[in-house]
Amino acid sequence: MVILGIDPGSSLIGYGAVKSENGKLICLGYGTIEVEAKETYLRLIEIRKSLKKILAEVRPNKAVLEKLFFFKNRKTVIEVSQARGVILLTLAENKIPITEVAPLELKRALTSYGRSTKENIQKIVKLILNLKEEPEPDDAADALALAILGSGA
Amino acid sequence: MVILGIDPGSSLIGYGAVKSENGKLICLGYGTIEVEAKETYLRLIEIRKSLKKILAEVRPNKAVLEKLFFFKNRKTVIEVSQARGVILLTLAENKIPITEVAPLELKRALTSYGRSTKENIQKIVKLILNLKEEPEPDDAADALALAILGSGA
Repeated sequence: MVILGIDPGSSLIGYGAVKSENGKLICLGYGTIEVEAKETYLRLIEIRKSLKKILAEVRPNKAVLEKLFFFKNRKTVIEVSQARGVILLTLAENKIPITEVAPLELKRALTSYGRSTKENIQKIVKLILNLKEEPEPDDAADALALAILGSGA
Repeated sequence: MVILGIDPGSSLIGYGAVKSENGKLICLGYGTIEVEAKETYLRLIEIRKSLKKILAEVRPNKAVLEKLFFFKNRKTVIEVSQARGVILLTLAENKIPITEVAPLELKRALTSYGRSTKENIQKIVKLILNLKEEPEPDDAADALALAILGSGA
Protein backbone atom coordinates (compact mmCIF):
# COMPACT_ATOMS: atom_id res chain seq x y z
CA MET A 1 0.00 0.00 0.00
CA VAL A 2 1.23 3.46 -0.91
CA ILE A 3 0.36 6.37 1.37
CA LEU A 4 0.77 10.00 0.32
CA GLY A 5 1.17 12.60 3.05
CA ILE A 6 0.37 16.22 2.23
CA ASP A 7 1.11 19.29 4.36
CA PRO A 8 -0.60 22.31 2.75
CA GLY A 9 0.92 25.64 3.73
CA SER A 10 0.42 29.16 2.44
CA SER A 11 3.55 29.31 0.29
CA LEU A 12 4.75 25.69 0.14
CA ILE A 13 2.92 22.39 0.03
CA GLY A 14 4.95 19.50 1.44
CA TYR A 15 4.39 15.98 0.14
CA GLY A 16 5.88 12.60 0.93
CA ALA A 17 5.07 9.07 -0.25
CA VAL A 18 5.67 5.91 1.74
CA LYS A 19 5.17 2.29 0.70
CA SER A 20 4.14 -0.22 3.32
CA GLU A 21 5.28 -3.74 2.39
CA ASN A 22 5.33 -6.76 4.69
CA GLY A 23 5.32 -4.49 7.71
CA LYS A 24 8.26 -2.51 6.37
CA LEU A 25 8.11 1.15 5.36
CA ILE A 26 9.93 2.39 2.27
CA CYS A 27 10.23 6.06 1.32
CA LEU A 28 9.16 6.52 -2.31
CA GLY A 29 9.96 10.21 -2.44
CA TYR A 30 9.24 13.58 -0.93
CA GLY A 31 9.44 17.25 -1.74
CA THR A 32 7.41 20.42 -2.00
CA ILE A 33 5.06 21.93 -4.50
CA GLU A 34 6.39 25.42 -4.99
CA VAL A 35 3.78 27.68 -6.46
CA GLU A 36 5.26 30.43 -8.58
CA ALA A 37 2.28 32.37 -9.90
CA LYS A 38 1.39 35.44 -7.91
CA GLU A 39 -2.31 35.50 -8.74
CA THR A 40 -4.44 33.26 -6.50
CA TYR A 41 -6.37 31.77 -9.41
CA LEU A 42 -3.26 30.75 -11.33
CA ARG A 43 -1.74 29.35 -8.12
CA LEU A 44 -4.72 27.03 -7.75
CA ILE A 45 -4.24 25.76 -11.32
CA GLU A 46 -0.53 25.16 -10.61
CA ILE A 47 -1.30 23.25 -7.40
CA ARG A 48 -3.76 21.02 -9.22
CA LYS A 49 -1.29 20.31 -12.06
CA SER A 50 1.58 19.50 -9.68
CA LEU A 51 -0.60 17.24 -7.53
CA LYS A 52 -1.91 15.39 -10.59
CA LYS A 53 1.69 14.75 -11.62
CA ILE A 54 2.57 13.39 -8.16
CA LEU A 55 -0.52 11.16 -8.16
CA ALA A 56 0.41 9.75 -11.56
CA GLU A 57 3.94 8.98 -10.37
CA VAL A 58 3.19 7.67 -6.90
CA ARG A 59 -0.28 6.13 -7.41
CA PRO A 60 -1.27 6.33 -3.74
CA ASN A 61 -3.96 4.10 -2.23
CA LYS A 62 -4.55 6.60 0.53
CA ALA A 63 -3.82 10.24 1.35
CA VAL A 64 -3.23 11.85 4.73
CA LEU A 65 -3.52 15.63 5.13
CA GLU A 66 -2.66 17.86 8.01
CA LYS A 67 -5.88 19.28 9.44
CA LEU A 68 -6.17 23.05 9.49
CA PHE A 69 -6.90 23.82 13.08
CA PHE A 70 -5.24 26.80 14.46
CA PHE A 71 -4.41 29.91 12.54
CA LYS A 72 -2.77 33.15 13.27
CA ASN A 73 -4.27 35.48 10.73
CA ARG A 74 -7.33 35.62 8.56
CA LYS A 75 -5.51 36.10 5.30
CA THR A 76 -3.52 32.88 5.60
CA VAL A 77 -6.41 30.65 6.62
CA ILE A 78 -8.46 31.68 3.58
CA GLU A 79 -5.58 31.15 1.15
CA VAL A 80 -4.50 27.84 2.67
CA SER A 81 -8.11 26.60 2.75
CA GLN A 82 -8.63 27.53 -0.89
CA ALA A 83 -5.54 25.50 -1.80
CA ARG A 84 -6.81 22.67 0.42
CA GLY A 85 -10.10 22.74 -1.47
CA VAL A 86 -8.26 22.12 -4.74
CA ILE A 87 -6.14 19.36 -3.17
CA LEU A 88 -9.16 17.60 -1.62
CA LEU A 89 -11.10 17.89 -4.90
CA THR A 90 -8.23 16.40 -6.90
CA LEU A 91 -7.76 13.49 -4.46
CA ALA A 92 -11.51 12.81 -4.32
CA GLU A 93 -11.85 12.88 -8.11
CA ASN A 94 -9.10 10.24 -8.22
CA LYS A 95 -11.06 8.21 -5.67
CA ILE A 96 -8.22 8.31 -3.15
CA PRO A 97 -9.50 7.93 0.45
CA ILE A 98 -8.50 10.91 2.58
CA THR A 99 -7.68 11.07 6.27
CA GLU A 100 -7.17 14.38 8.05
CA VAL A 101 -4.87 14.49 11.05
CA ALA A 102 -4.48 17.30 13.56
CA PRO A 103 -0.90 18.61 13.97
CA LEU A 104 -0.83 17.69 17.64
CA GLU A 105 -2.13 14.19 16.93
CA LEU A 106 0.68 13.73 14.41
CA LYS A 107 3.39 14.87 16.80
CA ARG A 108 1.95 12.79 19.61
CA ALA A 109 1.84 9.65 17.48
CA LEU A 110 5.40 10.01 16.29
CA THR A 111 7.14 11.29 19.36
CA SER A 112 4.94 10.19 22.26
CA TYR A 113 5.17 13.71 23.57
CA GLY A 114 3.09 16.03 21.43
CA ARG A 115 5.04 19.21 21.80
CA SER A 116 8.02 18.04 19.81
CA THR A 117 9.92 20.46 17.63
CA LYS A 118 10.11 20.43 13.87
CA GLU A 119 13.68 19.10 14.13
CA ASN A 120 12.42 16.14 16.15
CA ILE A 121 9.97 15.21 13.40
CA GLN A 122 12.79 15.33 10.83
CA LYS A 123 15.00 13.08 12.99
CA ILE A 124 12.24 10.56 13.68
CA VAL A 125 11.22 10.38 10.02
CA LYS A 126 14.87 9.78 9.06
CA LEU A 127 15.09 6.92 11.59
CA ILE A 128 11.78 5.25 10.73
CA LEU A 129 12.35 5.37 6.97
CA ASN A 130 16.06 4.63 7.23
CA LEU A 131 16.99 7.70 5.18
CA LYS A 132 20.55 8.89 4.67
CA GLU A 133 19.66 12.46 5.54
CA GLU A 134 16.98 14.25 7.48
CA PRO A 135 14.27 15.25 5.01
CA GLU A 136 14.26 18.93 4.09
CA PRO A 137 12.37 21.23 4.23
CA ASP A 138 10.27 20.52 7.31
CA ASP A 139 7.09 20.74 5.19
CA ALA A 140 8.26 17.61 3.35
CA ALA A 141 9.28 15.92 6.62
CA ASP A 142 5.83 16.65 8.05
CA ALA A 143 4.25 15.16 4.94
CA LEU A 144 6.36 11.99 5.34
CA ALA A 145 5.35 11.86 9.00
CA LEU A 146 1.70 12.04 7.93
CA ALA A 147 2.25 9.18 5.47
CA ILE A 148 3.96 7.10 8.20
CA LEU A 149 1.02 7.74 10.51
CA GLY A 150 -1.37 6.78 7.70
CA SER A 151 0.45 3.46 7.22
CA GLY A 152 -0.60 2.52 10.73
CA ALA A 153 3.03 1.94 11.71
CA MET B 1 -21.25 40.72 -22.21
CA VAL B 2 -22.43 38.11 -19.73
CA ILE B 3 -21.46 38.49 -16.09
CA LEU B 4 -21.85 35.68 -13.56
CA GLY B 5 -22.15 36.62 -9.89
CA ILE B 6 -21.34 34.00 -7.27
CA ASP B 7 -21.97 34.18 -3.52
CA PRO B 8 -20.29 31.19 -1.87
CA GLY B 9 -21.74 30.28 1.52
CA SER B 10 -21.25 27.32 3.82
CA SER B 11 -24.44 25.47 2.88
CA LEU B 12 -25.66 27.26 -0.26
CA ILE B 13 -23.86 28.88 -3.16
CA GLY B 14 -25.88 31.63 -4.82
CA TYR B 15 -25.40 32.40 -8.50
CA GLY B 16 -26.92 34.88 -10.90
CA ALA B 17 -26.18 35.76 -14.53
CA VAL B 18 -26.77 39.12 -16.15
CA LYS B 19 -26.35 40.16 -19.78
CA SER B 20 -25.29 43.69 -20.55
CA GLU B 21 -26.49 44.80 -23.99
CA ASN B 22 -26.55 48.36 -25.33
CA GLY B 23 -26.43 49.72 -21.81
CA LYS B 24 -29.36 47.54 -20.76
CA LEU B 25 -29.19 44.75 -18.21
CA ILE B 26 -31.07 41.51 -18.74
CA CYS B 27 -31.35 38.75 -16.14
CA LEU B 28 -30.36 35.41 -17.69
CA GLY B 29 -31.11 33.36 -14.61
CA TYR B 30 -30.32 32.83 -10.97
CA GLY B 31 -30.49 30.19 -8.29
CA THR B 32 -28.43 28.27 -5.80
CA ILE B 33 -26.11 25.32 -5.90
CA GLU B 34 -27.42 23.07 -3.17
CA VAL B 35 -24.81 20.58 -2.10
CA GLU B 36 -26.31 17.36 -0.86
CA ALA B 37 -23.32 15.17 0.01
CA LYS B 38 -22.35 15.20 3.65
CA GLU B 39 -18.67 14.42 3.17
CA THR B 40 -16.53 17.49 2.41
CA TYR B 41 -14.67 15.77 -0.43
CA LEU B 42 -17.84 14.74 -2.24
CA ARG B 43 -19.31 18.20 -1.70
CA LEU B 44 -16.35 19.73 -3.54
CA ILE B 45 -16.91 17.38 -6.49
CA GLU B 46 -20.63 18.35 -6.54
CA ILE B 47 -19.80 22.07 -6.48
CA ARG B 48 -17.41 21.68 -9.40
CA LYS B 49 -19.96 19.69 -11.44
CA SER B 50 -22.78 22.18 -10.79
CA LEU B 51 -20.59 25.16 -11.60
CA LYS B 52 -19.38 23.54 -14.85
CA LYS B 53 -23.01 23.05 -15.85
CA ILE B 54 -23.82 26.71 -15.12
CA LEU B 55 -20.76 27.86 -17.10
CA ALA B 56 -21.80 25.72 -20.07
CA GLU B 57 -25.31 27.20 -20.01
CA VAL B 58 -24.48 30.83 -19.29
CA ARG B 59 -21.04 31.18 -20.97
CA PRO B 60 -19.96 34.15 -18.87
CA ASN B 61 -17.26 36.59 -20.02
CA LYS B 62 -16.58 37.61 -16.45
CA ALA B 63 -17.24 36.37 -12.91
CA VAL B 64 -17.73 38.39 -9.74
CA LEU B 65 -17.39 36.72 -6.33
CA GLU B 66 -18.16 37.98 -2.89
CA LYS B 67 -14.90 38.38 -1.01
CA LEU B 68 -14.54 36.42 2.19
CA PHE B 69 -13.73 39.03 4.76
CA PHE B 70 -15.30 38.65 8.06
CA PHE B 71 -16.18 35.40 9.71
CA LYS B 72 -17.80 34.32 12.86
CA ASN B 73 -16.37 30.90 13.42
CA ARG B 74 -13.34 28.98 12.35
CA LYS B 75 -15.21 25.97 11.04
CA THR B 76 -17.20 27.95 8.51
CA VAL B 77 -14.31 29.95 7.10
CA ILE B 78 -12.31 26.81 6.34
CA GLU B 79 -15.23 25.07 4.65
CA VAL B 80 -16.33 28.12 2.67
CA SER B 81 -12.74 28.81 1.59
CA GLN B 82 -12.27 25.22 0.43
CA ALA B 83 -15.41 25.57 -1.70
CA ARG B 84 -14.14 28.94 -2.95
CA GLY B 85 -10.87 27.26 -3.96
CA VAL B 86 -12.78 24.83 -6.17
CA ILE B 87 -14.92 27.66 -7.63
CA LEU B 88 -11.89 29.87 -8.38
CA LEU B 89 -10.02 26.91 -9.92
CA THR B 90 -12.95 26.04 -12.18
CA LEU B 91 -13.39 29.65 -13.34
CA ALA B 92 -9.65 30.09 -13.93
CA GLU B 93 -9.39 26.84 -15.90
CA ASN B 94 -12.17 28.17 -18.12
CA LYS B 95 -10.18 31.41 -18.53
CA ILE B 96 -12.97 33.53 -17.04
CA PRO B 97 -11.62 36.75 -15.48
CA ILE B 98 -12.52 36.99 -11.80
CA THR B 99 -13.27 40.05 -9.68
CA GLU B 100 -13.71 39.80 -5.93
CA VAL B 101 -15.92 42.32 -4.20
CA ALA B 102 -16.23 42.96 -0.46
CA PRO B 103 -19.78 42.67 0.94
CA LEU B 104 -19.78 46.27 2.12
CA GLU B 105 -18.53 47.51 -1.26
CA LEU B 106 -21.40 45.65 -2.93
CA LYS B 107 -24.06 47.11 -0.64
CA ARG B 108 -22.58 50.58 -0.94
CA ALA B 109 -22.56 50.44 -4.73
CA LEU B 110 -26.16 49.28 -4.95
CA THR B 111 -27.80 51.23 -2.21
CA SER B 112 -25.57 54.25 -1.64
CA TYR B 113 -25.70 53.46 2.04
CA GLY B 114 -23.61 50.43 2.78
CA ARG B 115 -25.50 49.07 5.72
CA SER B 116 -28.55 48.03 3.76
CA THR B 117 -30.47 44.93 4.70
CA LYS B 118 -30.74 41.76 2.69
CA GLU B 119 -34.33 42.72 1.78
CA ASN B 120 -33.07 46.00 0.30
CA ILE B 121 -30.69 44.12 -1.98
CA GLN B 122 -33.56 41.93 -3.18
CA LYS B 123 -35.76 44.99 -3.90
CA ILE B 124 -33.03 46.86 -5.74
CA VAL B 125 -32.07 43.84 -7.83
CA LYS B 126 -35.75 43.39 -8.78
CA LEU B 127 -35.95 47.04 -9.86
CA ILE B 128 -32.68 47.15 -11.80
CA LEU B 129 -33.34 43.91 -13.67
CA ASN B 130 -37.05 44.59 -14.08
CA LEU B 131 -37.98 41.24 -12.55
CA LYS B 132 -41.54 40.21 -11.72
CA GLU B 133 -40.58 39.05 -8.24
CA GLU B 134 -37.84 39.71 -5.76
CA PRO B 135 -35.19 37.06 -6.32
CA GLU B 136 -35.15 34.31 -3.68
CA PRO B 137 -33.23 33.19 -1.69
CA ASP B 138 -31.07 36.16 -0.70
CA ASP B 139 -27.94 34.19 -1.72
CA ALA B 140 -29.19 34.30 -5.32
CA ALA B 141 -30.16 38.00 -4.99
CA ASP B 142 -26.65 38.78 -3.71
CA ALA B 143 -25.17 36.90 -6.65
CA LEU B 144 -27.30 38.95 -9.08
CA ALA B 145 -26.22 42.12 -7.28
CA LEU B 146 -22.58 41.06 -7.77
CA ALA B 147 -23.25 40.50 -11.49
CA ILE B 148 -24.91 43.93 -11.77
CA LEU B 149 -21.91 45.53 -10.06
CA GLY B 150 -19.60 43.62 -12.41
CA SER B 151 -21.45 45.00 -15.43
CA GLY B 152 -20.34 48.46 -14.40
CA ALA B 153 -23.96 49.66 -14.25
